[in-house]
Amino acid sequence: MNITLKDGSVLEYAAPMTAADVAKDISMGLYRNATACKIDGAVADLRTVLDKDCALEILTFEDEDGKKAYNHTASHIMAQAVKRLFPEAKLTIGPAIENGYYYDFDVEKPFSPEDLEKIEGEMKKIIKENLELERFELPVDEAIALMESKNEPYKVELIQEHAGKGEAISFYKQGEFTELCAGPHVFKTGQIKHNAFKLISNNAAYWRGDSKGKALQRIYGIAFPKKEQLDEYLQKLEEAKLRDHRKIGHDLQLFMTDELVGRGMPMFLPKGYTVWRILEDYIREKEIKSGYQHVLTPCIGTVSLYQTSGHWDHYQKNMFPAMEVDDETYVLRPMNCPHHMRIYANTPHSYRSLPVRIGEIAHDFRYEASGTLKGIERGRHFCQNDAHLFVTPEQIKDEFAKVVDLIFETYQDFGITDYRLVLSLRDPEDKEKYHDDDEMWNTAEDALRDVLNSLNLDYTEEIGEAAFYGPKLDVNVKPAVGAEYTLSTCQLDFCLPAKFNLTYIDKDNKPRTPVVLHRAILGSLDRFMAYLIEETMGAFPTWLAPVQVKFLPIADRHQDYAAAMMQQLQDAGVRCELDDRSEKIGFKIRSAQMEKIPYMILVGDKDIEANTISVRSRKNGDEGATSIEAFIARIKEEIDTKAR
Amino acid sequence: MNITLKDGSVLEYAAPMTAADVAKDISMGLYRNATACKIDGAVADLRTVLDKDCALEILTFEDEDGKKAYNHTASHIMAQAVKRLFPEAKLTIGPAIENGYYYDFDVEKPFSPEDLEKIEGEMKKIIKENLELERFELPVDEAIALMESKNEPYKVELIQEHAGKGEAISFYKQGEFTELCAGPHVFKTGQIKHNAFKLISNNAAYWRGDSKGKALQRIYGIAFPKKEQLDEYLQKLEEAKLRDHRKIGHDLQLFMTDELVGRGMPMFLPKGYTVWRILEDYIREKEIKSGYQHVLTPCIGTVSLYQTSGHWDHYQKNMFPAMEVDDETYVLRPMNCPHHMRIYANTPHSYRSLPVRIGEIAHDFRYEASGTLKGIERGRHFCQNDAHLFVTPEQIKDEFAKVVDLIFETYQDFGITDYRLVLSLRDPEDKEKYHDDDEMWNTAEDALRDVLNSLNLDYTEEIGEAAFYGPKLDVNVKPAVGAEYTLSTCQLDFCLPAKFNLTYIDKDNKPRTPVVLHRAILGSLDRFMAYLIEETMGAFPTWLAPVQVKFLPIADRHQDYAAAMMQQLQDAGVRCELDDRSEKIGFKIRSAQMEKIPYMILVGDKDIEANTISVRSRKNGDEGATSIEAFIARIKEEIDTKAR
Repeated sequence: MNITLKDGSVLEYAAPMTAADVAKDISMGLYRNATACKIDGAVADLRTVLDKDCALEILTFEDEDGKKAYNHTASHIMAQAVKRLFPEAKLTIGPAIENGYYYDFDVEKPFSPEDLEKIEGEMKKIIKENLELERFELPVDEAIALMESKNEPYKVELIQEHAGKGEAISFYKQGEFTELCAGPHVFKTGQIKHNAFKLISNNAAYWRGDSKGKALQRIYGIAFPKKEQLDEYLQKLEEAKLRDHRKIGHDLQLFMTDELVGRGMPMFLPKGYTVWRILEDYIREKEIKSGYQHVLTPCIGTVSLYQTSGHWDHYQKNMFPAMEVDDETYVLRPMNCPHHMRIYANTPHSYRSLPVRIGEIAHDFRYEASGTLKGIERGRHFCQNDAHLFVTPEQIKDEFAKVVDLIFETYQDFGITDYRLVLSLRDPEDKEKYHDDDEMWNTAEDALRDVLNSLNLDYTEEIGEAAFYGPKLDVNVKPAVGAEYTLSTCQLDFCLPAKFNLTYIDKDNKPRTPVVLHRAILGSLDRFMAYLIEETMGAFPTWLAPVQVKFLPIADRHQDYAAAMMQQLQDAGVRCELDDRSEKIGFKIRSAQMEKIPYMILVGDKDIEANTISVRSRKNGDEGATSIEAFIARIKEEIDTKAR
Repeated sequence: MNITLKDGSVLEYAAPMTAADVAKDISMGLYRNATACKIDGAVADLRTVLDKDCALEILTFEDEDGKKAYNHTASHIMAQAVKRLFPEAKLTIGPAIENGYYYDFDVEKPFSPEDLEKIEGEMKKIIKENLELERFELPVDEAIALMESKNEPYKVELIQEHAGKGEAISFYKQGEFTELCAGPHVFKTGQIKHNAFKLISNNAAYWRGDSKGKALQRIYGIAFPKKEQLDEYLQKLEEAKLRDHRKIGHDLQLFMTDELVGRGMPMFLPKGYTVWRILEDYIREKEIKSGYQHVLTPCIGTVSLYQTSGHWDHYQKNMFPAMEVDDETYVLRPMNCPHHMRIYANTPHSYRSLPVRIGEIAHDFRYEASGTLKGIERGRHFCQNDAHLFVTPEQIKDEFAKVVDLIFETYQDFGITDYRLVLSLRDPEDKEKYHDDDEMWNTAEDALRDVLNSLNLDYTEEIGEAAFYGPKLDVNVKPAVGAEYTLSTCQLDFCLPAKFNLTYIDKDNKPRTPVVLHRAILGSLDRFMAYLIEETMGAFPTWLAPVQVKFLPIADRHQDYAAAMMQQLQDAGVRCELDDRSEKIGFKIRSAQMEKIPYMILVGDKDIEANTISVRSRKNGDEGATSIEAFIARIKEEIDTKAR
């Protein structure tokens, strides 16, 4: 029996042996750190017996799957601790995730912070007990009997789903705790470092994620092999919390949410709406200069409209319920493509008038499960910076290049540098999912690839990730807290124009179907603002700041002078506020700092005497006295150049 | 028996006599022109027998009610003509209206233009026949039997509603035609002038206005005593049709409607949205300068929100159906007051921070019956220029005056001069309808009245027209076609703030409830735009025109020069288009005229030679050659001053 290792070397064995034994043969160090393995590319338990030729890779915490195995064992330890402390708790599921793991329990009431502390304490005990994790398998009926004997109804339900498949059901047992589990796991609870794990948070969840199902209590935890790794992680977590747009948005009074208005329906407060409007004006102006025509359409359509587009059949679970009115049935729109299709169809077009670029800052509504809602990053109502470009096939490459230019010009203005480009292509084997026209697909995919290459851009190609209607480019970024999302996108569409019977008259006088580019530069304005808040931690560059300058009279007798100076700035179009409270200047400065205002203007006796103002910038602190004219020129320059 | 006439004089009669006979006694001229009368203030038929002391006024076509009687007779003549030509047609109702009359028939298919011509011809015959209109009354059972014998089921249904009231049912009969009718009517069909009536239009209608009921066919007609009056009316009607914002909006491609998107859901096309945006920016900037804070809130709320505000109980018939999502029930918002209330409630307030003025260009949805929908003047989706001012009772007068100022400043910018001010007051007797606090009402009404008087404004006071929550000022205008509507409004509200438990801390450190002013300056932006379209007939002043300057190269060889000149104007922020079609210059000029563009710039050989442009303005025609710099200065000045 030949075992081929990752480096290509081959170990020969006469008799079957476990993956763990092979690891020991390779290196004792590797064996001690091993958490799982890959056999012929598939993740497996180190206990797996090898009895024929195979490729073997030993995984440690440094490998993504090895890290998951380690955290999964920590999850079992947590579940065991919960069962010791809360014997009435029912087990459900508890997987490893990107960062750490979670476990959902059916318990009477939510866990308190004190409960979590106690569970952590019990976990330490279990680690100290250094229990062995034993793996065993049972036929379905015995597996059910075992879980019934332990009074675990959710486990019984999960096993029943496997009935009839003829597969044996695997379990892991550590001490008195037995868990239905596919593995892999480390060998002993003592391998989990007693001072390098932490229970991070807890919240409500639903059995099988179904909000109509049973409510459960979820605990999130994380485990590392070294204490320093945990400390570093916790520090980053703290920083991320400070950076979380929901916290900053609340502190700076940018937006609010309100249960009476509705979950996932944020309201932009005056300061937040000021930023929002600058974004809106910025991108619309840029687009109009680039030959886009902006429209305004209602955030509603008939169900027939969305039946025509196909959304009603394919996207209904993300849509709000329909409303019957007289003989019409309306539905809140999840996307505005169909509206723009109808606008295109409203007038005849010739090849000479293409491309037609229809843009809109469009209000859309999508149903998102309440657990996934997240401030203005993911709401049920949002505004897309959407546009549809109606082009001839020959224009695809040119127009796509222009969109890519527009994206990066915009990113430059906002200083966005940390993103990932994904070119999503079809799976050529999958004729079911994808519009079947290989020539069209090849042309389109090549066009997109060519443009990205000619611009020398780094990107990842992902096969089978295209939309059913065509390939697309996504620009993805990572928020302070949570998973990566798409900021900008450009999608080619060969389907929707045909569904709406769109045409243009070509050079040969014959009607042809245009191709559509769906694109969004700022994506959703709301989400883009969430991104900006997290990137700047609320300290917006001057051109975006809701209040650009705050005037702080040192004493009440300086208020008139301050107001007069402020008026000059306001007349120049600068957004100002006057702090006219009868408070000490130190208090006023601190308060303006908390508001992250770019410039404070202090005025006192000396300023009035010399007809000056004293500038204090967020960046440099005290900058001394200057004339109001000089300051106006300086801040206007800073605003006009969108300086950061 | 004494008959007191309108001028106060009294006629004495020994025996009963008809109103018509009295008219004859007053003046044969008056008798010949009489169409109806008023007895003790109530409209009545001239056939009415007077048998006791009363006040009598003889009405002619010159009186509103006299005109209605005349048109009502014309309506009977039309119905008689229809029954002669379409014996299977079923009669329903046919009242006189503000202009003319209509009659709804139950017929198999809609009337064609040829049908209307035939009906007019038959009406002329009936007029020539000079049939007498006889009035008679029957008890309910006999009335039903009569209408059943004539196979008129709608009439039977109408009579049945009167069963049990013990009233006799009145009819008017002319020749073979008998009509259930309360009157009044003239005496003979020949009194309707044969060459001074006209059938204006026809459309579908519903029995009892219920869109779920039986579909009927309505014919509108009008009748005058003199041919010149009809001619004048028809000419005005033609003008109004040309002025109708729906026609102009279509011709100039400002907006479109689409059955797939939904009835009453207009979409603004690029040119229309350009105007819309200027309106939006104009009013928001003006409001921000006036101390308003603008917000952005979703056009949706939970039903609980509208239960709290009272809209769910009192306004539900104007709202869209609710949508159940998880454990929430959403509804499209008909107004955004509740959202602003919640924003106010989000932070604590003191008397020092009031007034708080929260403004929004707010998307709202209201259910309007499909028959009342009218382009962008009355849609089911619209954007309000809304704001809520949270004030102390002492601030009401000041803030109301500022709102009135804002209204008239705005009207000045748009040149709006033809409007009617209505001060709507409570009915002090009606304690049911109105919030019961006489002192509060008196203070509020006096405050509003004082401000209007001090500004020397003409206004009408209407008792019992206030909202249930407080008095209001409406500014009403008349569209080209249809009934007067409210453009701007300012309403005092003592109720909503309490319903939302809003407070501010007063000087004595005690919490008080603020008063709210609901106000809208441009009203709905959509409707305001409809108004502007009709007032200007689409020839917007330069600052509002979607395309301000169109460049017309005389030949193709002048295109590059034209494009270079246009770029300079565009860089100066002027909205331009280039007509680069290879067409004759006369054709291009006519086409720009049709688009009602303020300025055409023609360029030819001479212009290139002399480095000039040739200006042709919408107002003055050919204005000769000038430099591009001079033209930029001129048009910028025109735009900045909002010149008309």
